[in-house]
Parts: sequence; structure tokens; C-alpha cells
Amino acid sequence: MMISHTLTVELGDRSYPIYIGEDLLGQTDLISNHIHGSSAVIVSNTTVAPLYLDKITNALDQANIRHDLVILDDGEKFKTIDSVLTIVETLLNHRHDRKSTVIALGGGVVGDIAGFAASIYQRGIHFIQIPTTLLSQVDSSVGGKTGVNHPLGKNMIGAFYQPQCVIVDTSTLTTLTTRELSAGLAEVIKYGLIYDATFFDWIEQHAEALMKGKNEFLALAILTSCRIKAEIVAQDERESGIRAILNLGHTFGHAIETKMGYGNWLHGEAVAAGMVMAADLSLRHGWIKQEVKKRTVALLGKCSLPVMAPRNMSTGDYMDIMSIDKKAVNGTIKFVLLKALGEAIVTSNYNPELLKLTLIKC
Amino acid sequence: MMISHTLTVELGDRSYPIYIGEDLLGQTDLISNHIHGSSAVIVSNTTVAPLYLDKITNALDQANIRHDLVILDDGEKFKTIDSVLTIVETLLNHRHDRKSTVIALGGGVVGDIAGFAASIYQRGIHFIQIPTTLLSQVDSSVGGKTGVNHPLGKNMIGAFYQPQCVIVDTSTLTTLTTRELSAGLAEVIKYGLIYDATFFDWIEQHAEALMKGKNEFLALAILTSCRIKAEIVAQDERESGIRAILNLGHTFGHAIETKMGYGNWLHGEAVAAGMVMAADLSLRHGWIKQEVKKRTVALLGKCSLPVMAPRNMSTGDYMDIMSIDKKAVNGTIKFVLLKALGEAIVTSNYNPELLKLTLIKC
Repeated sequence: MMISHTLTVELGDRSYPIYIGEDLLGQTDLISNHIHGSSAVIVSNTTVAPLYLDKITNALDQANIRHDLVILDDGEKFKTIDSVLTIVETLLNHRHDRKSTVIALGGGVVGDIAGFAASIYQRGIHFIQIPTTLLSQVDSSVGGKTGVNHPLGKNMIGAFYQPQCVIVDTSTLTTLTTRELSAGLAEVIKYGLIYDATFFDWIEQHAEALMKGKNEFLALAILTSCRIKAEIVAQDERESGIRAILNLGHTFGHAIETKMGYGNWLHGEAVAAGMVMAADLSLRHGWIKQEVKKRTVALLGKCSLPVMAPRNMSTGDYMDIMSIDKKAVNGTIKFVLLKALGEAIVTSNYNPELLKLTLIKC
Repeated sequence: MMISHTLTVELGDRSYPIYIGEDLLGQTDLISNHIHGSSAVIVSNTTVAPLYLDKITNALDQANIRHDLVILDDGEKFKTIDSVLTIVETLLNHRHDRKSTVIALGGGVVGDIAGFAASIYQRGIHFIQIPTTLLSQVDSSVGGKTGVNHPLGKNMIGAFYQPQCVIVDTSTLTTLTTRELSAGLAEVIKYGLIYDATFFDWIEQHAEALMKGKNEFLALAILTSCRIKAEIVAQDERESGIRAILNLGHTFGHAIETKMGYGNWLHGEAVAAGMVMAADLSLRHGWIKQEVKKRTVALLGKCSLPVMAPRNMSTGDYMDIMSIDKKAVNGTIKFVLLKALGEAIVTSNYNPELLKLTLIKC
């Protein structure tokens, strides 16, 4: 029960700490120290609540903090405005005031929904994030993106909203399935690809230990991932420039998720296939060497991630979905592509013929 | 067709101008200069659209800006999350991207709904406000409060979100009913009461000209009101302190609106009665002189505003509704009360017995 790493995300008066360590949920004052009022609503889902909810309610009880619960169904398909309104109604029914805090206990979906609910309730109340999947620990911990899907597009409704703190308890990873651990590693690999070749080397070296769930390696992978993301986000909180490189593989990936139905491909799986497509398109432009694509495919494969797009998607399927992507401006699709291992750019300056080849061949 | 006053609301990188003048909607480049993409959605209602929509679409056409429309039903009862989702769906159906702009053409309700929709679409797109009622010109122009009602409480869902600019065309006031003009004057009088005794004197002197809709007097009243509000908001954008004095009369007023059903009492009318109650409670504590309450009642009366609460509301009605008000913290109701003409405080330090007397006698 101890914090092994603390990282501060620097965002001026919206700065906040990320605590990383084993059995942090057992450290009762860690949560309550970040609650300023006398009440909270815990948002979790039917998978995570039976495992870890007791630890949170116990911590709140000890600190004499009144709490209510919202247990959502598990899955991306419940990432809807209706789930947000359920949380708002619980807050209203139990007369939670402006000093109340929303605590998100679960993966990225729970965090996105709960964070958005916190951002709009009474125009914004406090929010604590306790991500319990590797993907959410390395992705949602930093950046303040919250929101829900719309039948016409993923993450189309939301807000930029920063938490009071993020608590990453690596012990929660022991209950993850291998498939989910892999999905999280896809994003870890992404940070190496876009920003830090040395980190990419380190992941290659320790892929086996990471896949086996070795705690100290996972803690370091999470720390480095969050640090890289924090560095990028600090430069561009509202994603008007460089921050977009974090979306490597995501434009292709979102198209895959949308076409295959939310939740059938895990987000990390779709991003893995999308990163291969991005590497392929970069290679076709002559921007990276064959070796970089090969190492990308090999490392993703080592982590049991898909390295090919689903067979039943046509070029038209991709183009239809990608042209409505949030990154599209005036109908032109922007892609994050690689200039080297550890260096990414956002560009609409690519050859559409090469894009077609990537869509057909990957 | 000219800008008679320009006021900049200073909020760092979220600063924006308010333009005040006659027939500004005829000045086509004023709107288009503040649109950075190539598309917009105009949100208006069934009352305002027939009067002024043409001017806006004309301005956009001249600047070659693609535009779509959302025409809402008129009234506070349509200030719901469903109206927000209608706007989001229009944005999605017509593939508006992140560079698109939402233009709100109408009173406070239209501005609140459209501003909130702009704040959550793709986590925030640009927003231009064209308030067409006196109330919205002196209130919603400054402060960035957007949001909608919930059956369990007014303005319970929303965001702080600043526009690119506000265009106050005083010519639009010629189509207001006297009742709506009066409702707007309630907020103008409020600024004098809480912040500027000299402005209160000026309103007393020119009440007749204002009620007659004389343009140069209205423009000055709007300018001074916005300037006072901007000074207060600049000190406290997210309402953690002094900004709350802007709610003079609003805690009582919201209770009246909620109990009587949204829209049956105009917001300004409820606030007028609420300000009399606040003055009465201040007087009972010996904080202001009898004369201040008398002048308040007299000026509101001169502007054809109610100076008494509805007869059918009990003390219990008020207490039930006020205890869930956003300004209540841990169940304690805070009130904005007067320390003198032109000076207000926010306090939970009042005598509950005197509060009861105010609720019974006003």
C-alpha cells in the first residue's frame, strides 16, 4: 500500500496529481484528501463495482463523506447521453450541491461518462478519476477529454474537463483479461511511436514482462506514458495543434470501431490495426523506413494485438466514416503519420492514391 | 447602421467584444468577421426568426458561409436537454466540423440552449450571441453561463462557455412587448442596487424614457449594465465569490418561477419581486434604511414590475425549492442582501426568524 510514483499534470490553475502504485485503493485518506465538500457520487459499472467498490465506500465512510451510487451497464454501447442524465438525476434526487464530487471507478467508458456528467452538473463540480484498466490509466488519466457517443459519431458530445486527481492502483490490473491488457499496451506502444524511440526500445525489451502483468514494469510503462501525454497536452490543452499526434491510428481505428459496432473491437485493438495502417501510409510516402513498419507490426503482434484491418471493410466504408471524424476540417481528412520512429506529424498533405492503396492492402 | 459602443469583456484568452448600436444586423461583415470556418448553424425561435432571421442569412450568404437552421419553440419550457440534442443532431446531420459556429438569435432561452450546444459539440465549437431582448442583452451578454433546466431544478445542467462576440442591435427592442421591456429593466435596476448608486439615480431619472423605448437611453443602460457585470465577472469567472451578488433577488425569484411553472412569471418579473424581498430582509436586519427599500419598490413600480410575491406561495414552498438552489451549500441557503444602495453581500449569516417574516409579509 504505497504510492510509487506521483506525476503532476501542469495546467496552471487546473493542474492535478496522478498517483501510481500498488493497492492505493486501500489507502483511505488518498481519496478523501481530494474531496472538499461532504458528499460524493461514485460512478462505476457492473463489472468493476463488485471488485473494488467496497474499498471506495469504506474510504468515504471513514472520512464521513455521504455517498450515492450509479452503477452503469458495462460497455461502450452505454456511453450515451442517457447514462450522463442518469448520473445527473442521482445528483439532483439526492440534493448534491456544488461542492459535491463525482468519483469515476472503472475504465475509459466510465471515466468519460462520469467526467462529462461532473462537467455539466450545475456548470461543473469536482471529479476524481480512478481508472481500473491499463488503457484508461495511460490514456484518460491525462488530457481532460470527457464525453459520450452519438449514433452518428463517436465522442461527438463532450467537454474538456480536468479532474482533481487521478488514482492509478496497479493492483486493479490483476483482474484484467489478457485481451484488455493487450488493448492497453496498444496505447503504450503509441507513445513510443509518436514521441520517444527510447521508450519504444524499452517496450520491445520488456514486452513479455508487461504481458505477464509484472507490476513494476507496468507501473513504469504507465508513468512514462502519462508523462509523455502530459508533456504534449501541456503544450496544447484544447487540441488546436500538436496534441492531435496522440491520435495516431485513431482515425482509421474509429472507422473500424464505428463500422464493426462499438465494443466488438476493443478500442485498443482498433487503434493497433490503425497504427499499422498509419505506418503503412507513412512508408508508402517514403517518410519512414520499412524497418519501422516491421518493428511496429512485430511489437503489436508480440502483444497479441491485431495487425490487420477487418476484411469486410471497403474503401468507401472508411471514407464515409472518416470524413465526419472530429479531425476532419471542411471535409478534408487529416491523418497522424510517422516521420520517423518517435516522431509524428498531423497532415492533410498526403497522396490520396497512396491512401487508397493502404485502405485496400492493410 | 452603426456601432455606438464597443465593450471588451476581459477574460484573458477568452476575452471578447460586445457591440451595441442601431441596426447592427444590417451590417453584414460584423457577423462574418467573427466566423473562422466556412459553416454555421443559426439557432432561433418561432417568434424571433420571422422578424430577423433574413438579416442573418443574408449576411452569411454574402460572406459565402454555408448555414443550417434550428428553429425552436418559444418559451422557457423548451429550455431542455432535448432542445440541445436537436441542435447537436442538426450539426451532425449536416456534417458541421470543429470550425463551425453556432449563432444564437433570440432571447436568453435561445442563448442558453445554443451556447450549451456549442460548448458540448465535439467538446466545444465557436459561438456568437445575438440577444434580441433587453433582458438577454444586459444579462446573457456577459458571463458565459449556458445551460438548460431539469424537471428537478432550473439551470441544473450547463457549462461556463464564452462567445466569440455579442452583437446587441437595439433596433430589435422595438418589437418587444412592454411586459418584456419591463422584465429587462428589472435586471438593469439590479445593477444599480448591487454596485452603483449613481446608476440607480440615473435610472430613476430616466425611467420614463427607458419605458418608452428611447434608443439612446436604452443603449446607455445596456452599456452600463454590461460594463458592471463584466467588472464583476472579470474578478470571479466561475462564481466562487463576489460574482454571486449578481443573483440579487434570484433565490427568491427562482422559487417563484419554479412554483408558478416556468414561463408564467417572466424571469425579470420574478427577480423584481425577489429584489423587494431581499431589500425587505436587509431592512429587517437593519442593514439598509427604510428609504432604500421604498426607492426600490417605487422604481420597480414605475417600470410596471411586480413588487409583491404571488399570494399562493407558502413559507414551506419557498424553503423546499430554495434549499436545492445551486447557491445552497450543505443545505444552507445563501442570500444576496443589501448593505447599502449600490452595495451587496452574499451571506448565510441571517436571522431565520426574520427570513420567515419576509416570506410571510412580502
